[in-house]
Amino acid sequence: MEHKIGLIGCGVVGQGLLQILHDKKNHLRDAFGFEAKVVAISDKLKGTLIAPDGIDIPAVLEILGAGKGLADYPKATPSQVEPLDPLDMIERTDAGIIAEMTYTDIKTGEPAAGYIKKALRLGKHVVTSNKGPAALHYREIQDLARKNGLQFRIEGTVMSGTPVFHLVECGLAGNRVKEVKGILNGTTNFILTKMETEGMDYGVALALAQKLGYAEADPTADVEGFDALAKVVILSNVLLGASLKTSDVPCKGISSISKADVEAAKAQGFRYKLIGHAKSENGVVTASVSPQKLPLSDPLAGVMGAQNALSLETDLMGKVTIQGAGAGKLETGFAILSDILAVHRCK
Amino acid sequence: MEHKIGLIGCGVVGQGLLQILHDKKNHLRDAFGFEAKVVAISDKLKGTLIAPDGIDIPAVLEILGAGKGLADYPKATPSQVEPLDPLDMIERTDAGIIAEMTYTDIKTGEPAAGYIKKALRLGKHVVTSNKGPAALHYREIQDLARKNGLQFRIEGTVMSGTPVFHLVECGLAGNRVKEVKGILNGTTNFILTKMETEGMDYGVALALAQKLGYAEADPTADVEGFDALAKVVILSNVLLGASLKTSDVPCKGISSISKADVEAAKAQGFRYKLIGHAKSENGVVTASVSPQKLPLSDPLAGVMGAQNALSLETDLMGKVTIQGAGAGKLETGFAILSDILAVHRCK
Repeated sequence: MEHKIGLIGCGVVGQGLLQILHDKKNHLRDAFGFEAKVVAISDKLKGTLIAPDGIDIPAVLEILGAGKGLADYPKATPSQVEPLDPLDMIERTDAGIIAEMTYTDIKTGEPAAGYIKKALRLGKHVVTSNKGPAALHYREIQDLARKNGLQFRIEGTVMSGTPVFHLVECGLAGNRVKEVKGILNGTTNFILTKMETEGMDYGVALALAQKLGYAEADPTADVEGFDALAKVVILSNVLLGASLKTSDVPCKGISSISKADVEAAKAQGFRYKLIGHAKSENGVVTASVSPQKLPLSDPLAGVMGAQNALSLETDLMGKVTIQGAGAGKLETGFAILSDILAVHRCK
Repeated sequence: MEHKIGLIGCGVVGQGLLQILHDKKNHLRDAFGFEAKVVAISDKLKGTLIAPDGIDIPAVLEILGAGKGLADYPKATPSQVEPLDPLDMIERTDAGIIAEMTYTDIKTGEPAAGYIKKALRLGKHVVTSNKGPAALHYREIQDLARKNGLQFRIEGTVMSGTPVFHLVECGLAGNRVKEVKGILNGTTNFILTKMETEGMDYGVALALAQKLGYAEADPTADVEGFDALAKVVILSNVLLGASLKTSDVPCKGISSISKADVEAAKAQGFRYKLIGHAKSENGVVTASVSPQKLPLSDPLAGVMGAQNALSLETDLMGKVTIQGAGAGKLETGFAILSDILAVHRCK
């Protein structure tokens, strides 16, 4: 079955998705009867491209890779590359699935939330890797999707393509998730790992993370725990049925953890990790983000470097832990693909 | 939708499944529109019960719990509890799904393989936790299932209900699995853990495992690696597309590992684990079971006690590791349920 797909945002994640759709074309068709036709792209910096007959993916990746905009797409008529607001693109395209991959605004969730709602109102499924709408407006958007018989899927918002929601929906279906505890931010885990294994000071480890591209020039969102906070709110609301806001969740990052703290913990047989935690007890969900000293027997204690992991406490299976990448071009592009494949499976 | 289910084998796993179907009845109906009616049970030791209107699960669990046989089921007419060979039960019941949960014969896969093939020939889906048929006859049985438009599902054969096949099918769909590496036997991992963390000799740790019910009176299948071997063959054939036989795979257990070996490894920063490994390279799959010294940075090194874990090396997501229970009444019962739910989802 062929699916027409529209992309909003075509930065690293969007280009990762395009790459996978191209490279895996035959595999996806043979294994799942899945065919994708990318019919629209709208990106704030790179412009718009609407091509109802399908975009030539290698040609698009080539011009974007060369730093050019979509207006330079060689096969387009002028009207196909007219600058369009994503809201107008959603209206103009006949895509049945919108992949929303713009940047996260964790204060408002906009403008992404507006794009998503418009797409759902117009009968299009939405998959997104954007934490903002998922952390701030999940219930409202999910209700809108359900009312319209559509899917709103968010695998990429927590650990990129390392499956969390698919794991619960599919492999663990029938379990009740009672508690989640995870290493949800690769940057801080990288910093803590370097502080412990190479005896670096916090500042030195942070500078290395910045140099390697794990941390932004302004590292606040990572090191103060705000990125993990958004993910904990998403996990609480989706897996534990809560209605938490980010302001409901105490959040402490790692910037006050010193090399001496890390070494003292190590001497006692513990290891510092930035832990996102949420627990449902008697119908009340409480959540937090904080640095914690884990015993080495905790499955999360062994998660080193920029990896992510999540332990799910369930009623039938006890604790199940999944570990994998938490970021990356192909990894987050794959998260989007995995959600598109879920839409495909439900057809 | 209601599914009629027949059980072959009603020992620990079968009773775990019945318990879950009863306890989770409302949850499964509300969350998935799934309803189960158990219409037949056939067990070598406990007899037969055929009840087309559905079995009263608590009543069955009570008589089995009291050590009685199915002939004592109070609501049955004599013809419903006539002793029947499972092959005759399969013929007599109108169950659309057969849950095969008899003991593993790793030499022949029988009589389970015969039950499974008969059920598939009669148009019934089959789900099983039995390693024998999956390790020895996977391709033949899967082909038979496909030819008849049916499902043959085996989640419970590798890590009980900790999802492996669901993970690959669903959360990781679209990836190519290139290599798997796992701790697939909880008993040996428990023994190695006790040898390292409590300085026990191999024999002392084995005796403790036997006392706690992790190891059988004859521990050969666990400690010599044969249980892990069957699982490696299953993983190779299902995930890597191989056609390996158990005799193709070199297999070494842990009985020759001494406390001194474990301590020497620890002093070098390594940890002994019994590793099942399979790798696809240039279209050739090679596999092995052997004790290996893992660096502590390996996600499998942190897996302690009777837990299981599997690392999957994939093309898009890199390494993804899942850890959880590898045995247990509810855990393996849940594996069977998860496969039944997969059949349900495909309707």
